[in-house]
Amino acid sequence: MFSFEILKKESGSGARLGRIHTPHGMVDTPAFMPVATQATVKSLTPEEVEALGFEMLIVNAYHMYLRPGHEVVKKLGGLHEFMSWNHPITTDSGGFQALSLSKTRKIKEEGIVFQSHLDGSRHLLTPEKCVEIQESLGVDIMMCLDECPPYPSTEKYMKKSVELTTRWAGLCRSARKRPGSALFGIVQGGIYPEMRRLSAEGLADIGFDGYALGGLGIGEDPAATYEITELTLPHLPGESPRYLMGIGRPEDIVTAVSMGVDLFDCVIPTRNARNGTLFTRHGQLVIKNARYAEDGGPVDERCGCYTCRNFSRAYLRHLYMARETLVLRLLTIHNLNYYGQLMKEARESIAQDDFPVFASRVKSLGGE
Amino acid sequence: MFSFEILKKESGSGARLGRIHTPHGMVDTPAFMPVATQATVKSLTPEEVEALGFEMLIVNAYHMYLRPGHEVVKKLGGLHEFMSWNHPITTDSGGFQALSLSKTRKIKEEGIVFQSHLDGSRHLLTPEKCVEIQESLGVDIMMCLDECPPYPSTEKYMKKSVELTTRWAGLCRSARKRPGSALFGIVQGGIYPEMRRLSAEGLADIGFDGYALGGLGIGEDPAATYEITELTLPHLPGESPRYLMGIGRPEDIVTAVSMGVDLFDCVIPTRNARNGTLFTRHGQLVIKNARYAEDGGPVDERCGCYTCRNFSRAYLRHLYMARETLVLRLLTIHNLNYYGQLMKEARESIAQDDFPVFASRVKSLGGE
Repeated sequence: MFSFEILKKESGSGARLGRIHTPHGMVDTPAFMPVATQATVKSLTPEEVEALGFEMLIVNAYHMYLRPGHEVVKKLGGLHEFMSWNHPITTDSGGFQALSLSKTRKIKEEGIVFQSHLDGSRHLLTPEKCVEIQESLGVDIMMCLDECPPYPSTEKYMKKSVELTTRWAGLCRSARKRPGSALFGIVQGGIYPEMRRLSAEGLADIGFDGYALGGLGIGEDPAATYEITELTLPHLPGESPRYLMGIGRPEDIVTAVSMGVDLFDCVIPTRNARNGTLFTRHGQLVIKNARYAEDGGPVDERCGCYTCRNFSRAYLRHLYMARETLVLRLLTIHNLNYYGQLMKEARESIAQDDFPVFASRVKSLGGE
Repeated sequence: MFSFEILKKESGSGARLGRIHTPHGMVDTPAFMPVATQATVKSLTPEEVEALGFEMLIVNAYHMYLRPGHEVVKKLGGLHEFMSWNHPITTDSGGFQALSLSKTRKIKEEGIVFQSHLDGSRHLLTPEKCVEIQESLGVDIMMCLDECPPYPSTEKYMKKSVELTTRWAGLCRSARKRPGSALFGIVQGGIYPEMRRLSAEGLADIGFDGYALGGLGIGEDPAATYEITELTLPHLPGESPRYLMGIGRPEDIVTAVSMGVDLFDCVIPTRNARNGTLFTRHGQLVIKNARYAEDGGPVDERCGCYTCRNFSRAYLRHLYMARETLVLRLLTIHNLNYYGQLMKEARESIAQDDFPVFASRVKSLGGE
């Protein structure tokens, strides 16, 4: 069964050390979930992801529903068995993808009508269907169906949208049939503090195993992301896990941790890796730059990852220029290792009441 | 230093068990070299290739010369250091690629004039340059510059070509400066037995560390490949290693082993993997077939590779259909494991004087 315990609250910040318990094991928080959109962290095996120190992945329910189909995954023993990952799994509900990937979509009271980005087939994603899909997958944390309005949206539209998302959340909660899967509500409301409060209180009234902040990092200024996060958290039950969806850069993560966020996911480390942009303790490094053509040093001489232990910048650049797929793996390993270390050091510094110092060190690297 | 010892000749066939010694360790023969064209076995790390049981790779000198440049590799400590592979490496001379990849090329007495397939720049590849490139890379086995005429070519053209290849081989031998790298001659002559004899005897007169058969598997009937291999081998020094270049399918390999060939390389296991075609003990399997969409079994239930131990046909098909790069790795691991096991079983059956039985079992799977 799902539970969350707070092991420690840091005295000098809002940061907290916690532990999520699930049917597939526990997750030390603050935690970062690598993104495994189509049931794979792009280019890596499950055992590599595990070795990098990650305890939970996020998979996309929308993608699983369309291909290979949640019923197929269920028949094959569930998502853990299907992708050979024996630790916890979260799934995003699919609401965000139904809106962002579909060419024609419509929000109706009963759900989201969308066309498959794969074959154009029409689908109706209701709150009940959303829970059915995620329960079929057998995941540890399910997300409620939500509407994520684009940025910017008017406060008037946002109010209607938040009310709909709250009604959908109630229907999701009622639709649950499988006790093993936890269900998180998703707070929306854009950049409007009052709408965020309305959303958070509505979800807290229904009661969920955890609460996520959605609809952030979609175009608004980072200062607004931080402000909304900080204003919203007090309206959520303090003893429940809080998850900031789709965020972000290392500096965003430590900022949110200091406010009391426990859980993160983001495509940045994996997507940047595939684009050849690497995180280092000296700032970012773009591997295709000509200056690395004859550079025999590792990406980051203080990094202990497999890539840095075995390969030079020159070799990685060669693979990148030659479009060799091995480079996707090697760069992904490096960036995920960076994020894994970031979260490990974040947890350690909270344990030592030293998080603000750690956080300012991370922030000083941002934007280089 | 390079040496070759024959440990056993099988009584019932021409097959032989041997061991190649190089500055970077030894290679048990008959051996198959995975192809690492651009200094990487596509999608795999060196440690994965090693774990699959391979002791030597073949890299392409033409590609290293054009990108990243052999001087760069030399400066970075040589090819072993560059690609983080601490076992023996063979390089193909680049003659074949200068002919096959270049749009405009010309055979002259002094070498091959070709245009880079990357940027159109013009280059002259002489026998001396060919050795200089490979010695800069610091490989264990270098190949002589040869002309590989297309199939079919006239016997008249082939005679002139073989004589040129023999002169180039002599120049390659004289150009050597680095004692650690062995040099193999390449027998040409197309499908003309007399030309093959001429080429083999010419190279044997010069004297090399080993001898390769080139210009086969380029369009001629497999029966012709076998016939030419069988007719040519007796003209080569029996105590030297013999390498059949670019061949082939499992049935081709066991046929050639039974004639006394020691060394092989071929893109088939790795390229077929990337195309979704897998070797199994029941014949070939095409992973994208709809029949595998809900198939929870492994690719081959008798296979012990990482892929078969952890993933179902349904998951592999899902990754393939979703164009996820992880599938390239997983299928490459499976196919190379198949070839690694093939060579291991070939060596064991020679040791047990049982190779003909093993070979007919392998041949019975061919063409399925």
